[in-house]
Amino acid sequence: MRVYNFAAGPSTLPLNVLEEAKKEFLDFGGTGMSVTEISHRDKAYMAVVSEAENLVRELLKVPEDYCVIFVQGGASTQFAAVPLNLMHNGVADYIVTGNFAKKAWQEGKLYGTANKIGDSSDRTYTYIPNVHKLSYTEGADYVHITSNNTIFGSRYSEFPDCKAPLVADMSSEIFSRETDVSKFGVIYAGAQKNLAPAGVTIVIAKRSLIGEPLNICPTMLRWKVQDENGSLYNTPPAFSIYMANLVLRNLKANGGVKEIQRINEYKAGLLYDFIDNSPLYKNNVLPEFRSIMNVPFVTGNEELDAKFVAEAKKAGLVSLKGHRLVGGMRASIYNAMPVEGVKALIEFMKKFELENKTTV
Amino acid sequence: MRVYNFAAGPSTLPLNVLEEAKKEFLDFGGTGMSVTEISHRDKAYMAVVSEAENLVRELLKVPEDYCVIFVQGGASTQFAAVPLNLMHNGVADYIVTGNFAKKAWQEGKLYGTANKIGDSSDRTYTYIPNVHKLSYTEGADYVHITSNNTIFGSRYSEFPDCKAPLVADMSSEIFSRETDVSKFGVIYAGAQKNLAPAGVTIVIAKRSLIGEPLNICPTMLRWKVQDENGSLYNTPPAFSIYMANLVLRNLKANGGVKEIQRINEYKAGLLYDFIDNSPLYKNNVLPEFRSIMNVPFVTGNEELDAKFVAEAKKAGLVSLKGHRLVGGMRASIYNAMPVEGVKALIEFMKKFELENKTTV
Repeated sequence: MRVYNFAAGPSTLPLNVLEEAKKEFLDFGGTGMSVTEISHRDKAYMAVVSEAENLVRELLKVPEDYCVIFVQGGASTQFAAVPLNLMHNGVADYIVTGNFAKKAWQEGKLYGTANKIGDSSDRTYTYIPNVHKLSYTEGADYVHITSNNTIFGSRYSEFPDCKAPLVADMSSEIFSRETDVSKFGVIYAGAQKNLAPAGVTIVIAKRSLIGEPLNICPTMLRWKVQDENGSLYNTPPAFSIYMANLVLRNLKANGGVKEIQRINEYKAGLLYDFIDNSPLYKNNVLPEFRSIMNVPFVTGNEELDAKFVAEAKKAGLVSLKGHRLVGGMRASIYNAMPVEGVKALIEFMKKFELENKTTV
Repeated sequence: MRVYNFAAGPSTLPLNVLEEAKKEFLDFGGTGMSVTEISHRDKAYMAVVSEAENLVRELLKVPEDYCVIFVQGGASTQFAAVPLNLMHNGVADYIVTGNFAKKAWQEGKLYGTANKIGDSSDRTYTYIPNVHKLSYTEGADYVHITSNNTIFGSRYSEFPDCKAPLVADMSSEIFSRETDVSKFGVIYAGAQKNLAPAGVTIVIAKRSLIGEPLNICPTMLRWKVQDENGSLYNTPPAFSIYMANLVLRNLKANGGVKEIQRINEYKAGLLYDFIDNSPLYKNNVLPEFRSIMNVPFVTGNEELDAKFVAEAKKAGLVSLKGHRLVGGMRASIYNAMPVEGVKALIEFMKKFELENKTTV
């Protein structure tokens, strides 16, 4: 029986995409080979990379002067690639609104002065600092943000309007809501939430910014090199890109980003409304900054939280355990989580609430 | 119809492994999820990573004091990781015996003095320099070799017995022949030849060597960090590791490295014998250094080569076109290429030879 998988990533993928991939797993497009076996220089495979790039461009309305590349190593590798490609003046600003934002900042410090100009750790990252009141550094090479915080369930409701190029890690929300790419210098995202199985990372970067990586930048981390080679400088993570292409086709066929945003807001709305009206469950993020992708909640009783996670699993609602830094529960409701999954979760939450009235 | 795929990588995988992966593609081990969807922190998935590591250890008899890690970015990323983890004295030796050996050497120069102490480009990389007669640099941090040259079809028949730790890129031959790991400081290999679909790279390193990466080494390229986190520092390329595990199980079930070496030598022997006795085809690599994985050959006539590749494809023998740096043909006959595939190729070569007698 297929479960509803609320994992934060790797995470659920569209069932019809999985079925399509399974169907042609031994014979990709009539080539007589699995897509896991075909040469990345084969025309049939190169067409996949090219189509995936074009779908990203179309779905996010990426301006012409931006590259769209598929690389490896996850967002964590990009934490280094960002300074190694951009830190020419040796100084950058970081807004630290969660665990991965902090890691990006710490990595930045390996290569220059990384100024932490905003920090919401004082209230366990349950809000985003007011981006209009931050002291941006004059002459900074970039301002780095993490647009959606997977662990703490917060996200930017508006983005910094800074002079320096804005660099955003959008791993846990890319393709979930409409984004004006032209406001950003660089957007990067690990694929394993809204795009594909783990193993591929997407980088969208303004070409005028990436012409001169630092000398110490590994060739494979040079966005310019990857762009000039159409993401095929070396052997790409072929299966993940193939799956990304199927997911993007599926997103387009279902109305694109605007339509999935509507559905995502509906799903998140159902869940937050229920939580806010529940005597048992609580979400601590300020409403303005609540993520529509990751919804953490607690009962306030650790034993009860553990019971919830265990019983939910038995009911076919899996990977609801909160991150170890937060505890409690977390429902990641990415693009591929159907409305029915969220409704099933809410039904379970209601039932659990009733059954555990006396405990509270 | 399933073809025989002679691609240099990504390349053919064992059919029974592909069938097994297909069978459980929508429901991994009864979890109700695809293996492409399951959290990398789920016990069911962590068991896969752990089993894959143990199989590598068992099949290659990896000594206890070596780490075995799964990372991303291909061997090309390791070209930078090698100096970034090891180049403490700022000097290393490189033996340049092919295209990727050259790239590794060029990358080394980004981080210190990379001495090219051997070079076989004078005869188009058709041999390996005598490793006993090279001038190894006193105090070098390591000596880097590429043990098998995918493009030119040569390989080391014996390895340098140097004072500095020996670092080997074994991408195109790992698991193909018995290897005394203890002779090496570091072995690394992209998976997409003998191990798994593209997207994962294996690093086997003596732990005493990797304790202090350079300060400028990206966290994700620090072998020590990956080792301490059991290859789960961040989200791993989960599907590729899963497939690697299936391939390794399959290798073990079929007699391990010793047995596959016997088969590989048999397959390569058939092909080289036929080529050496043919009036039409020629392999230019000195017999002592001939790869048992990659077998390039030419007719000496470019038009005829192109005709060969096109007609072979029609006969279900695909990806036989040689690398653009060499031209002609190349048959990559990795572990997963069945003996029948090599025999089918030889039959086709015979037929083509007869049909094109007048052209020669």
